[in-house]
Formats: sequence, structure tokens, C-alpha cells
Amino acid sequence: MQTFVMPVYHAPDFGAPGLKDAPDAAVAPCEADCIAPEYFHSTSMYPEYFRLGGEWRLAEESRMDCCVVLREDGRLDVVEQRNLRAGDRVILGRSEDGSEGIFLYADGFSMPDGAPGDQFAFRAGRSRETAYSRDYDKLYALLRYEKEHGGKVVFVMGPACAFDHDSRRAVQALIENGYVQGLLAGNALATHDLEAGSLGTALGQDVYTQVSRKNGHYNHLDVLNRARRLGGIPQYIREYGVKDGIMYALVKTGVPFVLTGSIRDDGPLPEVYADCYRGQAAMRDIIRGATTVICLATQLHTIATGNMTPSFRVVNGVLRPVYLYAVDISEFVVNKLRDRGSLSSVSVVTNVQDFVVNLQKGILGGE
Amino acid sequence: MQTFVMPVYHAPDFGAPGLKDAPDAAVAPCEADCIAPEYFHSTSMYPEYFRLGGEWRLAEESRMDCCVVLREDGRLDVVEQRNLRAGDRVILGRSEDGSEGIFLYADGFSMPDGAPGDQFAFRAGRSRETAYSRDYDKLYALLRYEKEHGGKVVFVMGPACAFDHDSRRAVQALIENGYVQGLLAGNALATHDLEAGSLGTALGQDVYTQVSRKNGHYNHLDVLNRARRLGGIPQYIREYGVKDGIMYALVKTGVPFVLTGSIRDDGPLPEVYADCYRGQAAMRDIIRGATTVICLATQLHTIATGNMTPSFRVVNGVLRPVYLYAVDISEFVVNKLRDRGSLSSVSVVTNVQDFVVNLQKGILGGE
Amino acid sequence: MQTFVMPVYHAPDFGAPGLKDAPDAAVAPCEADCIAPEYFHSTSMYPEYFRLGGEWRLAEESRMDCCVVLREDGRLDVVEQRNLRAGDRVILGRSEDGSEGIFLYADGFSMPDGAPGDQFAFRAGRSRETAYSRDYDKLYALLRYEKEHGGKVVFVMGPACAFDHDSRRAVQALIENGYVQGLLAGNALATHDLEAGSLGTALGQDVYTQVSRKNGHYNHLDVLNRARRLGGIPQYIREYGVKDGIMYALVKTGVPFVLTGSIRDDGPLPEVYADCYRGQAAMRDIIRGATTVICLATQLHTIATGNMTPSFRVVNGVLRPVYLYAVDISEFVVNKLRDRGSLSSVSVVTNVQDFVVNLQKGILGGE
Amino acid sequence: MQTFVMPVYHAPDFGAPGLKDAPDAAVAPCEADCIAPEYFHSTSMYPEYFRLGGEWRLAEESRMDCCVVLREDGRLDVVEQRNLRAGDRVILGRSEDGSEGIFLYADGFSMPDGAPGDQFAFRAGRSRETAYSRDYDKLYALLRYEKEHGGKVVFVMGPACAFDHDSRRAVQALIENGYVQGLLAGNALATHDLEAGSLGTALGQDVYTQVSRKNGHYNHLDVLNRARRLGGIPQYIREYGVKDGIMYALVKTGVPFVLTGSIRDDGPLPEVYADCYRGQAAMRDIIRGATTVICLATQLHTIATGNMTPSFRVVNGVLRPVYLYAVDISEFVVNKLRDRGSLSSVSVVTNVQDFVVNLQKGILGGE
Repeated sequence: MQTFVMPVYHAPDFGAPGLKDAPDAAVAPCEADCIAPEYFHSTSMYPEYFRLGGEWRLAEESRMDCCVVLREDGRLDVVEQRNLRAGDRVILGRSEDGSEGIFLYADGFSMPDGAPGDQFAFRAGRSRETAYSRDYDKLYALLRYEKEHGGKVVFVMGPACAFDHDSRRAVQALIENGYVQGLLAGNALATHDLEAGSLGTALGQDVYTQVSRKNGHYNHLDVLNRARRLGGIPQYIREYGVKDGIMYALVKTGVPFVLTGSIRDDGPLPEVYADCYRGQAAMRDIIRGATTVICLATQLHTIATGNMTPSFRVVNGVLRPVYLYAVDISEFVVNKLRDRGSLSSVSVVTNVQDFVVNLQKGILGGE
Repeated sequence: MQTFVMPVYHAPDFGAPGLKDAPDAAVAPCEADCIAPEYFHSTSMYPEYFRLGGEWRLAEESRMDCCVVLREDGRLDVVEQRNLRAGDRVILGRSEDGSEGIFLYADGFSMPDGAPGDQFAFRAGRSRETAYSRDYDKLYALLRYEKEHGGKVVFVMGPACAFDHDSRRAVQALIENGYVQGLLAGNALATHDLEAGSLGTALGQDVYTQVSRKNGHYNHLDVLNRARRLGGIPQYIREYGVKDGIMYALVKTGVPFVLTGSIRDDGPLPEVYADCYRGQAAMRDIIRGATTVICLATQLHTIATGNMTPSFRVVNGVLRPVYLYAVDISEFVVNKLRDRGSLSSVSVVTNVQDFVVNLQKGILGGE
Repeated sequence: MQTFVMPVYHAPDFGAPGLKDAPDAAVAPCEADCIAPEYFHSTSMYPEYFRLGGEWRLAEESRMDCCVVLREDGRLDVVEQRNLRAGDRVILGRSEDGSEGIFLYADGFSMPDGAPGDQFAFRAGRSRETAYSRDYDKLYALLRYEKEHGGKVVFVMGPACAFDHDSRRAVQALIENGYVQGLLAGNALATHDLEAGSLGTALGQDVYTQVSRKNGHYNHLDVLNRARRLGGIPQYIREYGVKDGIMYALVKTGVPFVLTGSIRDDGPLPEVYADCYRGQAAMRDIIRGATTVICLATQLHTIATGNMTPSFRVVNGVLRPVYLYAVDISEFVVNKLRDRGSLSSVSVVTNVQDFVVNLQKGILGGE
Repeated sequence: MQTFVMPVYHAPDFGAPGLKDAPDAAVAPCEADCIAPEYFHSTSMYPEYFRLGGEWRLAEESRMDCCVVLREDGRLDVVEQRNLRAGDRVILGRSEDGSEGIFLYADGFSMPDGAPGDQFAFRAGRSRETAYSRDYDKLYALLRYEKEHGGKVVFVMGPACAFDHDSRRAVQALIENGYVQGLLAGNALATHDLEAGSLGTALGQDVYTQVSRKNGHYNHLDVLNRARRLGGIPQYIREYGVKDGIMYALVKTGVPFVLTGSIRDDGPLPEVYADCYRGQAAMRDIIRGATTVICLATQLHTIATGNMTPSFRVVNGVLRPVYLYAVDISEFVVNKLRDRGSLSSVSVVTNVQDFVVNLQKGILGGE
């Protein structure tokens, strides 16, 4: 069984030429809510340091395409444009080599001495013909490490996981055994899963036999209507005797989830965020603290999550990588994330049903 | 040049056995906002008639998966669950053959005598190997017909149309020449298009030469920030001298558009709906009255629009088909709509860039 | 654990009107080699009966798109156009309802009384969102049945199975444990597999670590050159100490294989058929007697095999279905086979690496 | 209208260190037919120079993955392993920097002074969202240049081009107007095209109306049988009055074509190569001299052709690029060719029907 080895972070050498004598970063206030000053700096997913008062300081909780706000207490917050407020002091600058007091540091992680160095070799595009055996082994090792060390693993899920009997059971088992600390999804995943748990179908089709029930499409609409009447997912689970599946396991274990709405939703379930930007904020609250993120068969949520997930996390004062997996049957989708770099991002081209069952067997075995 | 021939609608024979003596449809009130009574009837995209007071009446403005509300004045409104209000009287029943006073009539259209009857022959799944020549010819004829007869053509667009020089010009020309009466899209389409119109790039890459500009990703963020500061798209177009493209043509001609938000948006632009259910309602307002809908390279908006688009429209008291085209490079996406029936739904598997340029050349030629 | 239940074949009722008094089928001789007489009958994959001398007789070993040759001894051979010989007496007729002495019987199989009848319900197109749990369970049961009852299982393989460490081991285990009785593939599958077995790479990339070896592309060319020098695959395995993988297991167990060439081959290996029609004939020799065929990630070989595989097999004088599985990551490919009917054809949309590892774990477990 | 500007080739500086004093390349004889000596050198698609007798000499007619044979007369032939003959003297060496007397020169082409330099900028992976407008404009300019300067344009075609009415006409027009100097395809393309030309269908389905003819699948088999009886494609065209399409135009204009067989063929037509390696050699004979190659919707033939097409051509003693276009609806297929470099290889992700109609309109306009 493979063991996970955590890469080591090497802080930048701020004594180096170009950094040592770098100027302080410029700052300008927002004139109005939601509006950044011109020439605002925009963040990446990598560690970025800002020179302020002659000191280099890290923006600890980052994400892509945001402004950096210098708070009164000296904190550096990474804030979406729409969440800026009038008067917020925003970092200016569009070079990342120190010359404007901004330093982006993409290459800080390396394997400790003696660890298998090729483990993080560069990999080009991934396809159906990539050899995935080692990726699976590494992922099993990573998830065991996360569980043992209090990591935070977030699953991001498209509806496919709820359409199939074994997949629902696999995700349920991973949640119940402590391998999932948060879930991001849409209205469909939750609704299909509750339909399967109470009526045995998803969109009216039996999740095991594939047989379409007569008038089965009403199952979907009835689940939504009943959950709305009862007031929410936990109430539906209790009232309709749901005893298995993804939502059942989340509610039972208290693992938090965020469901965000979309323009193709029926219903929706009461827990679903109607405002997609409030939903995005709620997703980011789940992602804060996440150390591994696994995205399964959802182009929309995968890209949304990729945008808000930094490549690193500060744990007990030390930087470590955040691992991001994207699993989809389409090369087009997984390659959307490919410029994240190979250290912490892995794409797998397959059917997510097989993927989650593999995780269950590979990690839990006879547990 | 092919001429479009409108299919003829044959009303059901309500004197037939099973319909003649059908009972009135049952009705029950909503006990609370957003909650339908149990055994509510759910609509399809097809014409549906309801027996009330011994009369068969059509729900004129329909869509899929909604309740039918009987208003005080006798009107039949087709309403999403979440838009029901306490006291609304909802039709009950889950059979569609008349036995519960509900009759779904999917086969009412046929070609007039002498018209080429095979035109609407059944077609199975569509793929990259389907012969599309006649579909193009028919679409050119249809769009000319719609323009001449005051039809309403709605385009539904993914961002791909704004990434490419010729595609932007093609859509612009279609709008300016009166072939588009509404547009549904997301924040990305509008933002990329404005970036192209003002800075020549989309996501920082030149839309003609494909060359990536230095620091080009700031172009995207600057467009959003500046449009937010100015207050909207028309202001941005004026202030930054946009002279071409999709949004330019819409604003210039006054063609209405709805932009709906999603969890992966930056910005967004001021016009974008943050609440996806209010956004869905605004989309449906555009779809009301639509006689042809053309969906281009967007799984999310295509399915959302398909859900809310009925197969028919009442024009001057007469039913006609609503034509729905789905164009995407993925068979998976276009086949999501395949159960709409072949009469009024056509799928084309290709790159939408080529598709819109074809439309421009096929319809406008040297116009 | 699910048990496989064999469907029962019900012979046609030849006493029925239309069949009872049907004429004898017409026959005409070939005027030249490889040329059928005009109005030749062409076969399907289904059981077809021919009236000759007043008797209805089955063409026992059928395939699609071939002529039926009446031999001197009364045998009915199903023969490709190019394999016809001058003087061969070919059945004429292009209706299949008996009126020309030809009867195609597509619906002869049903489940025995008491067996789960919904097992073979109709299924429409299959996609990444189909629920596959039961298909896996049924396949495990089927393969166990085939092993216990002397069935013949043929694998048809694209190169993907040899690119990955776990997949090679999974296929090896299935062969060594008696679950494979024949293999059809191309030059690439065998060459990559031998490269992995002797040098640890496929096309120069490590099949476990994904690390590309320096000058690794020579590995591929060296394997081909060395195997050619030695005279064949068994010699290469012996000389270069191959101890694992697909070809190793085939040679060790004596399971027959056919490798057919293509225009993109390097080499090829000595065993590869250069003439694609002689290759096609050799493939059909393997398919004769096959009771289950599993096609993995190869559009070319899957369609070729589908063309030559009948839907039925005569075993001890009784007809049974031939089961055909098509596994590919592309809906386009698996749907190419969809008109075979749902009884005996199953498509799975996934990465074949996961599929074969699933088979290994599901069937062999701790074996 | 864009004008094509030919890149200029700069010969290597053989006076540079490492090349000036490089040793002669080693040579060893083949011990047997089809077997290379160990440590044989394998070619790339790029210009490669070999030091022999103190002189650097170019292998003028190259391709990938072949041996270099030094002929008695000093010629350097690039030969497939299987075409080596006992005694052939083969170049040895596996470094390409001159240290073994072998120099690979990938970067010899640049734009002439004043030409738009960004024209050949690096491009990463191509997808459905790439902006293709300029690629089309450049291709129109290139094809006009080739026609005016006696270039040789080879089309490589999958069957899709013959399934559709407008596509057949577009390819016909390109051939008849002198824009095609060779065609590579399989049995299916030619058979479907002849079926369309004589019976109006492809595989029994009308190529314009998409209507499936009764018993239409016999059309395909009859075309094959009749062409075989008559002895070939020209005879079929004459006898059955074919007046349009791809094969008609090729035969009429005398443009050479090579049809190679595959294991999924029916028939085949008499012109089809049964032996895929003799077929590969015939394809390479067409590719010799080719200056632009356009591959359309065929994974098999595209990769086969890519393997045998060098990146350069010697015309009147001067090197110029060979342009290679790959057009397919699948990113997976076009990206298979991506390591050819951006100078001379362009991938387009679209439906080839639209692509060839675009070529026709863009180049021929009202011709």
C-alpha cells in the first residue's frame, strides 16, 4: 500500500535581488461598492506576497481573479469584485516579479529528500489513453492521509452520481467513514438522490434495473413538492423513510453541503441557493480550509470550484498543496483545468460511477 | 431557393369516444405558496386540453413540468411550482387520455395537401454523420418566413460565439437584418463580446489572430469592472467605443436580451440576473411568443430553454409549431433534446462558429 | 450474487399463414468469383430460415450483409461477397416475411417462466448518465455461467488496455483464470503490451508512473524490430523475459488470438495479418462458436466484430443468444451498435481501464 | 483577401561548435529482410542531416519512425522497417545534436522580413472554443497559392463527406477547379459516394432528405457487387450514369486516389488495397511531393497520413513547409497530431460537412 508523502514548501528568498529592494505595493480605495480602482491587481491560485511597510506578506486565503484588500488590522483579504465595498483599500499592480511590490511564487513546493521525486513530474494533456493506475493509488494514499491528519476533503458532484445504485452506495460509504468533509452540488443531485432513496428511481427510472416506471417523471416532481412542503431535506428524509444515499449520509453525519441553483432547475429544494453569487460565496466558505477537492462529472460546478480553490493552504502556519481532482468522461472538461500545474491537479477521464466505486473499494475495502 | 410551408393543425375530435363523455378535470387549491396539492397534473411541451364546465379548453401558453392554474376569469395558466401561491386552484390528474378530463394531443400537426410530406419524417439520433444539407436549406427558408410574417426568433448562446471574429460578425449581421427578436445568454457571452468589441480579445486572446496578449487576462476583468462602474452594457458600449459585435447590435436595434448568472461568473455585468429563478422567469418572458428558438453551444441554457419552450404557439387564434434548433459539437448535448419529436426539433452536430457563418451566408448572402 | 438465467428460444410457427404455404426460395449461380447474382439476399444478424424443398431451414452460422450459399450437401453457408466462387448457388430475395421463401425471426428469445422478465426490457440510447450497476452484476453472472458451461468468450481490444498497469494485470488475470477464449486486436495492442512487459513502458512512457523515458519512443520500435528478428511473439516473450501482461497470458494459456494490420502500423509484429480481408476471415473463425463478445475501446475492431457476430448461436442443437458488449468512452462509438436490440447487446460508456479492473474484482475477487 | 506568404528556410550553421567537428554517422548492414540493425536511428518528421564523408547531407524525402538507408549512389532513403532488405546499410545513432553525426533541425523556417510574424505564433491545444476565422482565411490563401504555384494538395477523407449532399458537391467543385491533386480514403467513402451518385442514397438513406428508402441497405451492397462485376469505379460511373460527386470528379479529372481496405469493409471495390502495408506504401507514393495535406473526419487515415508526412518538402532545391490540416469533431482526434508544432500543422474542431462547404465558398465563391 502506497504512503502519501507531503511536499515541502520553501519560502521565497526575499533577500534576492529584485525582492530585497522592492517597493511597497500601491493601494487605492474603492470609490463605490463593487467597483475596483483602475489598475487593480488580480490574484492567481498561487501563493502571492505583497510588500507593505517594507515587509513581504502572504495573502493566506486566496483564489483566482480577485482583488486584494488591505484591512485596517493589516489582514490581506482576497475579495471578488462584486463583494468590494466603498472605501476598501485595494492593492494595485500588474506585474508579479516584485517590481510593483507583488511577488507570485508558483514553484515553492518540492518533495522531501528521499521521497520519490518523479511522483510529481510534468504531465501533458490527459486523455482516455492516459495510464491511471498510479493516480488511483496516490489518491487512495492521499485520502487516508487526509483522514488521519484532519484534512478537509470536499466533493463536488454532478447528478450522475445519483443515477446509479452502486455509485450512491459508494459515496454514502465514503461519507459515513469520514472521507468527506463537505459537498458542493446542484438541485438535481440532491433531488435525484432523494428520489432514489424514497422511490427507487431517478427521473422515474429505476436506479438499479434501469426500468422506467409508469408515470415515473412524477416521482421527480413529487419529491420536490413534498420536500418543499415539509421544509427541507432532513424533514423529507425523516418523513419518507430514506435510509440510504448521499443526502442521507450527509444529514446523518452532519457533513455540510451547499446546493446552488441554476436556470434549468425544477423546484427547487428549500436548501438551494437561488442567488448564484450568494451561492458562490457559500461554496467558497466550504472551500476555505479544504485540503483536497474532488470534482465529479459537472462542468459547471467543477469550473466554479476550480476558480475559487487556491493551490495551497496554510495549516498550522505551514503551506501545503491543495489537491484538486477533476473526473469527467470528456477530455474537453478536464482539460479546462489543465493550466493549474501538475503538482496539485490531477484529471481523470472516465465515468464517475466507476471512479467512486473504485474509491470505495480502494480505500474502504472490507471496512 | 426552398420555400417554407407551415404545417396545419387539426384540432382533436372531441366527439370521439373517451373525450365526448370525459369528466371535468379535478381542481384543488394550494395550501401554501410554492406548494402544489398532491396528485397535481404536470404539463408537457405539447398542446393539452382540460375539460372544465363540460368544455375542452387549451392551456395556450405552456411549458414542461408545470402546474396548471385555473384563474378566476377562467384562464389556464401554466405555472412553475415555486411560483404557485396559496389558494391557486391547480388541476389534478395524471392520465392524459381524457379519463381525468385531461387530453394531451401530440400529433395535431401535418403538412398541407401537396406539400412535401417526407419533410418531417421521423429521424433517429443525430450525429456527426447525419446529412445536414436539407436542414440548412429548411432553416434558411424558415427564418425568411419568420421575418416576413412577424415571427419571433430567439437565439440562445454559449460563449463560443464571442470567441471568434467571423462568428461575432455573423450574429451581428443577423440581428441588424431583423432575423433575431430576442437573445438568452450568460454573463460570459456578453463579457467576451464586449471585450472583443473594445479590446479585440476574448479572455485576453485576439479573436482573429489567436495571439495571446501580455497580461491579457486583465482585459476580461477590466471590462467587467468598467461596465459595473458605468452602470451597464449600453454605457460601456458608448464610453469605450464598441462598434461591432453581438451586444452592440442588440443595443443598437433594441432587441431584448436576458443574461442569467451562474456560479462560475466573475463580475458580473450589471444586467445579469443574480437570482437564477428570477432569471428563469425573465427567460420565459422572452420565450413567450417565440416561434423559432435556436440554441448554440450551451448545455445549460439549451436545456433550460428547452424546458420552458412549448412545441406550439397560438398565433391569431391558430396553432403553429414552435421550431427549436439545438446546435452543439457534442452528440450528448443535442440528444438531450431528442424526445421532443422530429416535427419541430432539429439537432445539428457541429461547431457553432461554422453554423452562424452559414446562417449569415445562406440568408443574407450579399445583403 | 446474481445468477444468470438463459433465455429460451421459441422456434417460429411455420404452420402460420404466410409461412405454411410459402414458396421455395429462389437460387441463382454466381457467374464469376466474388460476384453475386442480382437480387441476392443479404443476411442480418438474426436467425433466418429459408424454404427449400418445402422445408424451412436455418442458416446456422450467420453474420450481417452476406450472401447465403446452398451447398451440394444442403448446407446453408453465409458467405461474404468477396468469398463467393463461380457456380456457388446463392439465395435470391429481398423480403423477409416468407413471401419469397425467406423468414427472418428477430423475436425468438424470451425469459423462462419465473425469471425476472424486466431483465431484458427495452433501453434507449446509452450515455454517461445511464445506471450501470445492474449491467455489471449481470455481466459477472454471465461470465461465470460461460465458464461453467463451456461458453466461448472473445475479447476485442483497442490499445488502451495495454497503456495502463492495472488494466494489463486485470486482463491477464481474466485470461489465466479461464474467462477468455479468444482475443481480437491490432498490432498496437500487442506491441504496447510487449513493450510494457519487457521495458515497463508503452510508447516510451512508464505504464505505472506515467514518466516518459529519455529516447523512450525507441522502445516501441525496438520491440517491433526484435520480435521480427526473433520470428514472433512467443519468441520475444521467451528471449526478453516477459512475465506479465496480455500477450504473455495468451501465449502461456494457449488462448488463440488474431492480430489484424492497419495503415497506421509500424512494424508490424510477425503474427499480424497484412491482408485485411484474410484478417477479417481469421477474426470470423474466432467468432465462430463465440457465445459472448466484449469489445473494448476500439471503434474499428468493434464495428468489424459487430458486423460478423450473429445475435444467436446453436449449441447442442438449441439456439441461445450471443451477448455482445461494447465499452467505450464515446457515446458515438457505442451507439453505432445500438440497432442490435437490447436483448443481447449492452453498451457501457466508460474508460476501459476501469471496466476491466471492475471485471477482475467482480469476478475473481480474491481468486 | 489575405495573401499567402511562404516562410523562408534557413539552413543550419554547420560551422557551429558541435556540428563542425561532428563525427561521421555510423552505418551497419541489415542482416535480413525487414530487420534493422540494433541501435538503428529512427527519423522524425523534421529535416535531418547526416554527416557522411565529412559532409552534412539532408534526407530529402522523410517521414516519422523509419530507418535511413545509405544507397550505393549516396542517396539517403527513409525506409519503413518492413521494407528494409538484407544488406541495406542503415544509419545508427540515437542522439540528434550532431554528436553521432545526426542533426535534427526543427526550427529552420521563419517568416520573411516584413511578413506578419505573429502568423505562426505558438498555439496550445485546440478545441471547440478556439477562434478559427483566421485559420480559414489563411487556408483559403494557402490553397490559392498552391494552385498558382504548382503545389500538390492531398485530401484525406473519412466517409462523412459522402453522406451529405452539399459536402459531395463542395468536394467535387474543389477537385474540378484544380484544388486537389490526390485523395486518400477507404472503401466506405468511395462506396457511399458512388451510391449517392447512382441511387441518391448513402447506406440507403437519401443524402439530401435524410429519408431512409425501403430496403435501402441493399443499395450499398448492390453498388459493391455491381462495381466488382464491372471491374472498377470508372466502369461503374459509366455504366450507372454517375454525374456528380467525389469519385466522379476524380475519375473525370484524372486526379489519383488510393483506397485502402480495413477489417470492417464490405465488398470491397476492386481498387481497394487489401494488403494494408502495400496500401500504406501507395499512400506514401501520393504523399511524396505533397505540399499541403487536409485530413477530414477519419482518425485512422489521419494518423496514418500524419505518420508518413514530413514537415518539409524540397521544391526546386529549396525547403518549404508541408502544411497539414486535421479537421474532426473530436478534440481527442485532432490533438493526436498536436506535437507536430504549430508552424505547419493546424487543427480545426468542427463537422467536416461545414468545413468543406466553407472551403468551396471561400475559395471558389461564384466560380
